[in-house]
Amino acid sequence: MGLRQRLWGDVSASPTGPRNLITDVPGVAVGHCDIRGEGLYTGVTAVLPCADNPFLHKLPAAAHVINGFGKSCGLVQIAELGTLESPILLTNTLSVPMAGHALVEHMLVQNPDIGDKTGTVNTVVMECNDGGISDIRALSVQPGHVRAALEAAGPDFEEGAVGAGSGMTCYGLKGGIGSASRVLDLAGGRYTLGCLVLTNFGFLGDLTFCGVHLGERLAARSREAEQGSIILLLATDLPLSDRQLGRLCRRASMGIARTGAFTGNGSGEIALAFSTANRIPHYDDGGLQRAAHLPDSRLDPVFRAVVSSVEESILSSLCHAETVVGRSGKPTRCLREALRELRPDPQLEALREAFAL
Amino acid sequence: MGLRQRLWGDVSASPTGPRNLITDVPGVAVGHCDIRGEGLYTGVTAVLPCADNPFLHKLPAAAHVINGFGKSCGLVQIAELGTLESPILLTNTLSVPMAGHALVEHMLVQNPDIGDKTGTVNTVVMECNDGGISDIRALSVQPGHVRAALEAAGPDFEEGAVGAGSGMTCYGLKGGIGSASRVLDLAGGRYTLGCLVLTNFGFLGDLTFCGVHLGERLAARSREAEQGSIILLLATDLPLSDRQLGRLCRRASMGIARTGAFTGNGSGEIALAFSTANRIPHYDDGGLQRAAHLPDSRLDPVFRAVVSSVEESILSSLCHAETVVGRSGKPTRCLREALRELRPDPQLEALREAFAL
Amino acid sequence: MGLRQRLWGDVSASPTGPRNLITDVPGVAVGHCDIRGEGLYTGVTAVLPCADNPFLHKLPAAAHVINGFGKSCGLVQIAELGTLESPILLTNTLSVPMAGHALVEHMLVQNPDIGDKTGTVNTVVMECNDGGISDIRALSVQPGHVRAALEAAGPDFEEGAVGAGSGMTCYGLKGGIGSASRVLDLAGGRYTLGCLVLTNFGFLGDLTFCGVHLGERLAARSREAEQGSIILLLATDLPLSDRQLGRLCRRASMGIARTGAFTGNGSGEIALAFSTANRIPHYDDGGLQRAAHLPDSRLDPVFRAVVSSVEESILSSLCHAETVVGRSGKPTRCLREALRELRPDPQLEALREAFAL
Amino acid sequence: MGLRQRLWGDVSASPTGPRNLITDVPGVAVGHCDIRGEGLYTGVTAVLPCADNPFLHKLPAAAHVINGFGKSCGLVQIAELGTLESPILLTNTLSVPMAGHALVEHMLVQNPDIGDKTGTVNTVVMECNDGGISDIRALSVQPGHVRAALEAAGPDFEEGAVGAGSGMTCYGLKGGIGSASRVLDLAGGRYTLGCLVLTNFGFLGDLTFCGVHLGERLAARSREAEQGSIILLLATDLPLSDRQLGRLCRRASMGIARTGAFTGNGSGEIALAFSTANRIPHYDDGGLQRAAHLPDSRLDPVFRAVVSSVEESILSSLCHAETVVGRSGKPTRCLREALRELRPDPQLEALREAFAL
Repeated sequence: MGLRQRLWGDVSASPTGPRNLITDVPGVAVGHCDIRGEGLYTGVTAVLPCADNPFLHKLPAAAHVINGFGKSCGLVQIAELGTLESPILLTNTLSVPMAGHALVEHMLVQNPDIGDKTGTVNTVVMECNDGGISDIRALSVQPGHVRAALEAAGPDFEEGAVGAGSGMTCYGLKGGIGSASRVLDLAGGRYTLGCLVLTNFGFLGDLTFCGVHLGERLAARSREAEQGSIILLLATDLPLSDRQLGRLCRRASMGIARTGAFTGNGSGEIALAFSTANRIPHYDDGGLQRAAHLPDSRLDPVFRAVVSSVEESILSSLCHAETVVGRSGKPTRCLREALRELRPDPQLEALREAFAL
Repeated sequence: MGLRQRLWGDVSASPTGPRNLITDVPGVAVGHCDIRGEGLYTGVTAVLPCADNPFLHKLPAAAHVINGFGKSCGLVQIAELGTLESPILLTNTLSVPMAGHALVEHMLVQNPDIGDKTGTVNTVVMECNDGGISDIRALSVQPGHVRAALEAAGPDFEEGAVGAGSGMTCYGLKGGIGSASRVLDLAGGRYTLGCLVLTNFGFLGDLTFCGVHLGERLAARSREAEQGSIILLLATDLPLSDRQLGRLCRRASMGIARTGAFTGNGSGEIALAFSTANRIPHYDDGGLQRAAHLPDSRLDPVFRAVVSSVEESILSSLCHAETVVGRSGKPTRCLREALRELRPDPQLEALREAFAL
Repeated sequence: MGLRQRLWGDVSASPTGPRNLITDVPGVAVGHCDIRGEGLYTGVTAVLPCADNPFLHKLPAAAHVINGFGKSCGLVQIAELGTLESPILLTNTLSVPMAGHALVEHMLVQNPDIGDKTGTVNTVVMECNDGGISDIRALSVQPGHVRAALEAAGPDFEEGAVGAGSGMTCYGLKGGIGSASRVLDLAGGRYTLGCLVLTNFGFLGDLTFCGVHLGERLAARSREAEQGSIILLLATDLPLSDRQLGRLCRRASMGIARTGAFTGNGSGEIALAFSTANRIPHYDDGGLQRAAHLPDSRLDPVFRAVVSSVEESILSSLCHAETVVGRSGKPTRCLREALRELRPDPQLEALREAFAL
Repeated sequence: MGLRQRLWGDVSASPTGPRNLITDVPGVAVGHCDIRGEGLYTGVTAVLPCADNPFLHKLPAAAHVINGFGKSCGLVQIAELGTLESPILLTNTLSVPMAGHALVEHMLVQNPDIGDKTGTVNTVVMECNDGGISDIRALSVQPGHVRAALEAAGPDFEEGAVGAGSGMTCYGLKGGIGSASRVLDLAGGRYTLGCLVLTNFGFLGDLTFCGVHLGERLAARSREAEQGSIILLLATDLPLSDRQLGRLCRRASMGIARTGAFTGNGSGEIALAFSTANRIPHYDDGGLQRAAHLPDSRLDPVFRAVVSSVEESILSSLCHAETVVGRSGKPTRCLREALRELRPDPQLEALREAFAL
């Protein structure tokens, strides 16, 4: 069960998948590469959308910019063609170009036809600014880190302060990578929706944890809140069109809101969704492309699952991250540590027990 | 203080204006016309954006479609030109055209130059579907109702099941018109942000009232939940550009989310924002148009006020609406009545006391 | 053959359909109702997208706003759901609401379930401002005119100053309704793309007719140019998704440009495209919806056909319209009459012969 | 005078600036770096939007995607904030990331506060695919090339097959960099609009040169047409808001259409516009930001200038480029060479003379 269900007995939400991770969607794999060093607490996270070659068999996809104070790359072509044709990389803001360069190299190795017998490739790199903790001016991400993240990709992966999440701050606490999944029985089939977030947003005083206003109790005790960004990836094997995937993306902000934030001016908040169903061949056979889609009138349980899995993914990033001492020598505390300073009460104890905090 | 402040002592939100209504923004006026009759429980609400002629001195404006299962009119030109040049009407879905016709008539009377010496006029009509309670097929709105709503417009107006809100259903309870306002001290000036909503959305089980999950306690006791729509109007005397007003609109969904909903497939959810500062003359003098805008970096308190006032406006619509017996003979209960059936507890009593429920 | 082919022997464009009208697309029907009277030279044009009920079996659709100085209604839901579920009406700007009201009435008669057992209906009304010729302040369109246009709809229809085109001015000459079609052999099938335009835009000096800069020769001899709008409808039986239909719409401006215009500030230019393939049932059966789409990589001939048929439709509106004496007593000359005043030369004679001008 | 004026005596268009280049806009500078080698015919072009630091004093800006089959970076933040804060780089598709990396390095050197005392920086890199001529898989652009282009930037620069334009193909002929400018007297002031294009699009048979259908005469004689992309930059000292600059961008496609193309499926066509007026400080002073804007009702001459300068810029890229022998050993002929094979006639001779072809 998801967090809310465990805490509230919420019966309306769908059950979670076996790992409660985005990788519960068959074919999706996630890998991290951590970068540590003098003032460096950053990294790369790679999300592979499918087990085979996404360039040769593209995936229906869409993206939605919630707030565009961000530098993600690759969204223009997704909007036009409705397809994803590369892995997705997450990293720190100023390393987007170098990560993108390494991803282009990777795609060229996998596809000798790109740029020779066929056109170019659209690579997707998304980001948050970890400059509060890590020395982002060092431009520390190198192609080797990207290759390592891609090679590490598998069905099991860590959450919290790892990979691209290494130096991220969420609600003034240590954030990073979080993930969740939901299983849906729809239109005669069983499907999975998975979410992965990179959390780097929010003011501590706003933090709402499973409906509990923790932020108000924690705010006086923590360092000044920071704002940042959040990247949200949604993967599913539901047969959804690019337009429908866009509708999923537009529900992501409702999940963010449930954790208390209001999307500040300086926050780069972007959601990207893809489906592993109805793949689109790069080299078409000259005939029509057949597809089967869930009717829009059946989307409500999917929208619910989006909001619920986004909320849980964000909270999960907070639950998994550990305290980190950043480039300035100041610690960014993790949620678990912050909670220790609160006076216990039954609600807090229930939270701690439910999330092993 | 707003609802959340009263209940939670939330110190981060801005104080409310003197009426805690959208009409706290100087010049903004609201009027209702109720339509009652055999199976009819509908009406018209008019929002006047300024005390003078909006066609001659247009207002910076923007709109944002959260979910486009809706039939609102007039948004295309707002997107292109960034201006509002007419009052805004709210009514039931199928009466949008007749209301629009009456608004055109009104604008022609006010402006003898329209369609003769100068171009045409862009009228804005927004809607929700009250067909669950009222006989929407009757197309009962007539031009006289629109004129009555326009004439009734003033700084004081009722909330709840009045005007366009007469037959609306929100979280399975009686919804309708709700409003709130916030006062902001920014950039050396004191400004007001006001919100007015027409609520017709949500499943009862999802209702979250000031963070309290009332819906889960009420769901088993109420009729089947309905889905619908919400229209959100934001008015301010803050000097904001059309682009900035669009950013305000895009925060409205965070306020909706705080009340528990996830924006269903069939929900028409549209936000429209306008500013009474930096008016734009219809007949320009051939020179440049001067304006002063709040820097984007100062918008966070405004965004907060948007989310907070949207949440309070929605809850206010529920607090003010009374139980209505609709066309089918079945009552749509109001929140006050629904709460009576719940077993009392301290949290519930606090809510009831704070909101006089 | 299309105009360009006849004149230039252009072999790259596709051949025209049998009528060279939008109604070459099977199922599409067009009807006009003219309104004449004291100062009145206006009307309604109805475009039926299919022979059966579009509400029960919706059509994939998309729209694109080239320049949004316009008041068309119904585009919000098309963008969200990617479907058209009603006939499309064209009329003068200020009569959009009354025409919309009549279209709602029509849909209610056809569908007793709307607003009772099921939700509401999204009606589409598009417009140009004919106030230069007709007394647009008279709000002369009545529901009976809309019913008459709907009833008159068939495969054969007039072009020029008829229906909604009655009072329109294009390039300072008499404009109105124009149409064209193209036949395409693609992916093993034979398909038709049709275009219908309502032309009310452009400065005389800019008019380019099949590449011939007629406007420069005519400008000195005509009354001051007016600006206005253009509505462009694209119909096809090609199996295209809503996203792909949006791509078609975005090519419409290239066709406009070929006739010389630059899209002025005050021009409402909107393109709407629908496909009669892959219909979407209003009442789904709970299973998946199957569809077959043309691959994007095969769209170039379709894009070409869009640009070519838009250009020809615009020119056709000029070729068919007759001189009209408007409300001010001044005539708006037709192209044929204007050409008579030019000194003949071989190029002009070729044009006249090719288009029977 | 611009090309059309020289050829047609077109009196409606505005006069050109002294250089007839984008650098006629005060403060704008352009620099190239060519990359040549085994199979390499590529490079980088840098466009500096202002003489001072664009990060500290940002420029109002907007972008518009005509067709999104492209990989340009930096557009998300421009859409949200309406500002440009870095130089713009143009290069080949697969080198976008490395060019972006070098531009980040450049911005970090110029601004020690970025990523330390303040947030990050949004860099803009735009591209076309020169893989038909150059070995794009070599990823040959290195940071040094970017630095060289930035350092070379000045008011005078070459057009044609230089910098990013080195390996581009336009209408099957050698394309590359083209530029033009227009001077406008508006609202009591004299202003300049400049355009720079990177041309890599179109089928030879479609080429229309100043209204002359050259393509139809050349198509049989040339190698198979290629499709590609076009990047369009618009610079002006006109005081325009970001919304108004977006309206300029949306006119760019009309200029493309005048040269004959229809925007194919595989074409990445993106326009970006910025204004050097009403600069926005990165570090605001806590007060309001004052601005003066041209009224929208005065934009028609500006729109005309956009279409006219885009058309001339494209043609200028063709006039300036020289024949290049690409990686396959096959030449991509320049326009001048292609014209030599045509049988002379008066129209052709007029073209040749007017453009020194």
